[in-house]
Amino acid sequence: MNVKYAIGLWLFGQLSDRFLTYHPPKSLEERAEEASRVDGASGVEVIYPMEFKYDELDKVKSLLREKGLSVASIIPDLFTELRWIRGTLASRDEKTRREAVKLCIEAVEAAKELGCKTINIWPGQDGYDYPLQADYGKLWDWFVEGVREVASHDSNVRVAVEYKVKEPRTHLLVSSVGKALLLVEDIGLKNVGVTLDIGHALQAGENPAESLVLLQKRGKLFHLHANDNYRDWDHDLLSASINFWDYIEIFFWLKKLNYEGWISIDVYPFRENVRRICEESIRMMKCVESLVDKIGMSELERCIEVGDPAETAVVLRKAFE
Amino acid sequence: MNVKYAIGLWLFGQLSDRFLTYHPPKSLEERAEEASRVDGASGVEVIYPMEFKYDELDKVKSLLREKGLSVASIIPDLFTELRWIRGTLASRDEKTRREAVKLCIEAVEAAKELGCKTINIWPGQDGYDYPLQADYGKLWDWFVEGVREVASHDSNVRVAVEYKVKEPRTHLLVSSVGKALLLVEDIGLKNVGVTLDIGHALQAGENPAESLVLLQKRGKLFHLHANDNYRDWDHDLLSASINFWDYIEIFFWLKKLNYEGWISIDVYPFRENVRRICEESIRMMKCVESLVDKIGMSELERCIEVGDPAETAVVLRKAFE
Amino acid sequence: MNVKYAIGLWLFGQLSDRFLTYHPPKSLEERAEEASRVDGASGVEVIYPMEFKYDELDKVKSLLREKGLSVASIIPDLFTELRWIRGTLASRDEKTRREAVKLCIEAVEAAKELGCKTINIWPGQDGYDYPLQADYGKLWDWFVEGVREVASHDSNVRVAVEYKVKEPRTHLLVSSVGKALLLVEDIGLKNVGVTLDIGHALQAGENPAESLVLLQKRGKLFHLHANDNYRDWDHDLLSASINFWDYIEIFFWLKKLNYEGWISIDVYPFRENVRRICEESIRMMKCVESLVDKIGMSELERCIEVGDPAETAVVLRKAFE
Amino acid sequence: MNVKYAIGLWLFGQLSDRFLTYHPPKSLEERAEEASRVDGASGVEVIYPMEFKYDELDKVKSLLREKGLSVASIIPDLFTELRWIRGTLASRDEKTRREAVKLCIEAVEAAKELGCKTINIWPGQDGYDYPLQADYGKLWDWFVEGVREVASHDSNVRVAVEYKVKEPRTHLLVSSVGKALLLVEDIGLKNVGVTLDIGHALQAGENPAESLVLLQKRGKLFHLHANDNYRDWDHDLLSASINFWDYIEIFFWLKKLNYEGWISIDVYPFRENVRRICEESIRMMKCVESLVDKIGMSELERCIEVGDPAETAVVLRKAFE
Repeated sequence: MNVKYAIGLWLFGQLSDRFLTYHPPKSLEERAEEASRVDGASGVEVIYPMEFKYDELDKVKSLLREKGLSVASIIPDLFTELRWIRGTLASRDEKTRREAVKLCIEAVEAAKELGCKTINIWPGQDGYDYPLQADYGKLWDWFVEGVREVASHDSNVRVAVEYKVKEPRTHLLVSSVGKALLLVEDIGLKNVGVTLDIGHALQAGENPAESLVLLQKRGKLFHLHANDNYRDWDHDLLSASINFWDYIEIFFWLKKLNYEGWISIDVYPFRENVRRICEESIRMMKCVESLVDKIGMSELERCIEVGDPAETAVVLRKAFE
Repeated sequence: MNVKYAIGLWLFGQLSDRFLTYHPPKSLEERAEEASRVDGASGVEVIYPMEFKYDELDKVKSLLREKGLSVASIIPDLFTELRWIRGTLASRDEKTRREAVKLCIEAVEAAKELGCKTINIWPGQDGYDYPLQADYGKLWDWFVEGVREVASHDSNVRVAVEYKVKEPRTHLLVSSVGKALLLVEDIGLKNVGVTLDIGHALQAGENPAESLVLLQKRGKLFHLHANDNYRDWDHDLLSASINFWDYIEIFFWLKKLNYEGWISIDVYPFRENVRRICEESIRMMKCVESLVDKIGMSELERCIEVGDPAETAVVLRKAFE
Repeated sequence: MNVKYAIGLWLFGQLSDRFLTYHPPKSLEERAEEASRVDGASGVEVIYPMEFKYDELDKVKSLLREKGLSVASIIPDLFTELRWIRGTLASRDEKTRREAVKLCIEAVEAAKELGCKTINIWPGQDGYDYPLQADYGKLWDWFVEGVREVASHDSNVRVAVEYKVKEPRTHLLVSSVGKALLLVEDIGLKNVGVTLDIGHALQAGENPAESLVLLQKRGKLFHLHANDNYRDWDHDLLSASINFWDYIEIFFWLKKLNYEGWISIDVYPFRENVRRICEESIRMMKCVESLVDKIGMSELERCIEVGDPAETAVVLRKAFE
Repeated sequence: MNVKYAIGLWLFGQLSDRFLTYHPPKSLEERAEEASRVDGASGVEVIYPMEFKYDELDKVKSLLREKGLSVASIIPDLFTELRWIRGTLASRDEKTRREAVKLCIEAVEAAKELGCKTINIWPGQDGYDYPLQADYGKLWDWFVEGVREVASHDSNVRVAVEYKVKEPRTHLLVSSVGKALLLVEDIGLKNVGVTLDIGHALQAGENPAESLVLLQKRGKLFHLHANDNYRDWDHDLLSASINFWDYIEIFFWLKKLNYEGWISIDVYPFRENVRRICEESIRMMKCVESLVDKIGMSELERCIEVGDPAETAVVLRKAFE
């Protein structure tokens, strides 16, 4: 395992929910400065073009170099503009689908400019809200075609699709690890994979560790988003603050399956100091990682081999010794 | 039963979620004009002072008179200002609690001015997000004291507390019908009751009809909010668009227990024409009401008496004859 | 669409939950007699060898012929024997995996004897209950191998895998439509497909109509189980008694995509007359089917094309005209 | 805090789910022997008359004395007999209600005989499964009357009502902490209180620590059941095996509010060694208790006072130092 931590750069700007906008706006420079001050982070994840335009790439590059930050992934903004609210790569409107593909390809180009090997497609507006509102087969086909076109643009840039079961639509198209992997199979390109957002897996009723294994086993775990929730909604809370044992299991498998890549902090500290929540998220994960070592990989392997929760309880308590 | 329909006036302005702001802003006049055009609605619900200031009351009064709209309820804005984000009536900060009480009392006065007999307190910011973040006993006591003070200001204005299990906090204090009624008992004032938001009941894992009966039985069903969802989150969808039989049961009990009051449409049509979604919500409910009559109150009473779902299925199919 | 209705034959025997065993036991003959009396049903689904042994096949054949019942599907019993409680086709014990394959192949042979073209594998014991209890990659591979071997035994008998997210384990391996289809892809045999249990889709947070479309589009909707619940658990309630509009959408797509096959009633009427609940389940679905015709396929197609829930509400109310 | 641990005596007998019966039957003597061997347990909880008849009380008494076990609580069996399946204290059938009251009063008498100060009423069959199946107001009133009669029989025996949101019915009457406390208020007797089952609170979408505080604050936390789940269903897993931080918070409040009483293990180890799962449940809780001490009550009090999850994360990591 060789894990590096990144922060969603947008987290240092304004965050909204249905009722309020929290925190003052911050310039790109200020956000980068905040990110650079997060102890343990060496990279950022950025939303394009929400955070910067294409002609600002040089500025971004030098700014991040100056701050000592790499770009973990670029997220094409398919979710914060009004033109996307009825769908993007799977929009029923062909022109919108073309625009979405075009934007993602720009993100691929931006990634190359920034020395980043992954774009992260989160199709948050692709889905539906009501019964009898969508032609599900067409949604699927349009999405497959769109991602295929994006990924074909440059086989050296990885396209990671981030699944989520709901929000902002009541039902998103790419809702589960199973559907995400089936899409990847349908697309059939080596540089198409999946982003596992740990909170999205929990929200979808999945065991995140299982989803992680299914992805990594096929070489399709391209990226990771870390946060936590109560298995009910994407609350984006501080990592491991709710589901501690799940995080132990996640880091066991990251080590066991030798994940080499980024873990990007995707929390939403509406009421808190954003930098501190990011920092403590990383510290919690580093703590979890060290506990996995303390308990011992071979002990945990034995737990899985034996499969007896009483025995596992004994082993897990070694964390506190 | 004597039901009148109202619309949340704010629905005609801008609506936001975590990712976007939808719809153009509209002036008070424009919003009132839109509300007046909703077929079937005779009232509005307003958020104070988000929608108008105290010194605009005369203007509001004449505007609504002109449009032929009554005020179903006034909602003191305890949720869209930054001063409230760590709590209002149950804030750990005494000064904030005082401000919240003051605002609610202003809303009581505004209600009297507008000929409205109910204020609707939705304590959406009172709660917590994480384990070990709140002193639950104090939250409860502060909230009881606050509402008691507000309701004591004028016993002729009803104070309806609207419960909700989560959002915007991961855990709200007044989360269920049971806790809402227990609070009402603790407060011990005749003019304190509850707003049942049908979607909130569904989100909390309740059967809305049962919650309605528990409230009305004690004379505490002060107000109703109508919308729908998938029992998972407060999606605020078009009424009866998801849970049709639940709406049949709700209207059976509204008739049976002779509810006299408002049903206020509280939907969030991010991607739709707001006026039309409000209008169709009312039409769906009027359709449900007419189906209850078509099936027959005595037939439905017999279903409940017998308690056999096979027999109930036979009876419910009369809706389609 | 050419739909035939079947009943799970076991439903007429004893049903249990954690606390009680309901209904008296009934012999095979009595159960068949009960099934034959269900108005609207022309077939049964049977659990082998729980309901009959291999050497009783002739007796079963003549009994069902006599009652005028076909066999919709045979379910190899991988869930009611103690040898299976830690897994079957994906057991960590090789001997158990061999036994499970053997049993499924017997079910294939029994299907041929009984003129039934489908076996339904429900791997209810394959999964895990706790974190750190399973090697997820191995579970997957074992299951793929097992089903491949079963399906390779006779390519003329269809093997339908029934997915479910939980119960009796807290986490089942084949938990969602996406994972079920991914498994089918991995197995790579033409005669391997999926059983959609409508209640399982609801329990998994899916929209059953979407899952149905994804399956049928690939020619993998091999079988259907009908029941209903509150989207929270596999309560196995009377069809369409909770989620009425979902059933409208389901039957729209069954017609649109021309499903030819069985719908098998899989309800659990612990406290009711089993025959009547089965019968009313069929009648509800026939009612739904006739309402789809009454509203009109082209009108519903237009709803989907337009995608406006206000317009859809207008159209759906035609059901009551 | 003065906590003693008990085990549900029935756990050492046969356990069932919808599909299987697990473990061999064991005699009362064998079950008591097993319970006595659970390291850390000093009591048992018993179901009457499922586990022993009234005329066996002397035998039970001497058996438990011999094994060194106290009786933590007696649970009148209102859930495993066919006469109860449509309700008990809130049955629509008056005769059944009388029988239920009678049984509970016998349990009160048995409690006195056994030196046990609490009966635990779990009204698992009181509720409903479908819409339009119950007269909710009557259910409530009947239940209030029944418990009042039981509790009036002897004011020295405490009657603890155990709430649960669902299972075996899709909706139980006493579903949440709020409804449980409202019932207690309605009954209005000093010896009526509530059993908090930690898993039931999680299943109901509650934060167990908050529910605990609301109960204890009113002197109504009469009894505790310990187990764990994924906040979705009453899986009855090993304590703290899923929600570790919740258990930390629970024990913080037990100490802070000085709970004096039993914690009874209510797990369902279908596939495991029952005694070991009970034992490890106790050990996990003792570990949690010691971690609360290690972190320090004043530190945790400060976390709650400050309410900043970043700061709390720092404090909680002291558990691993």
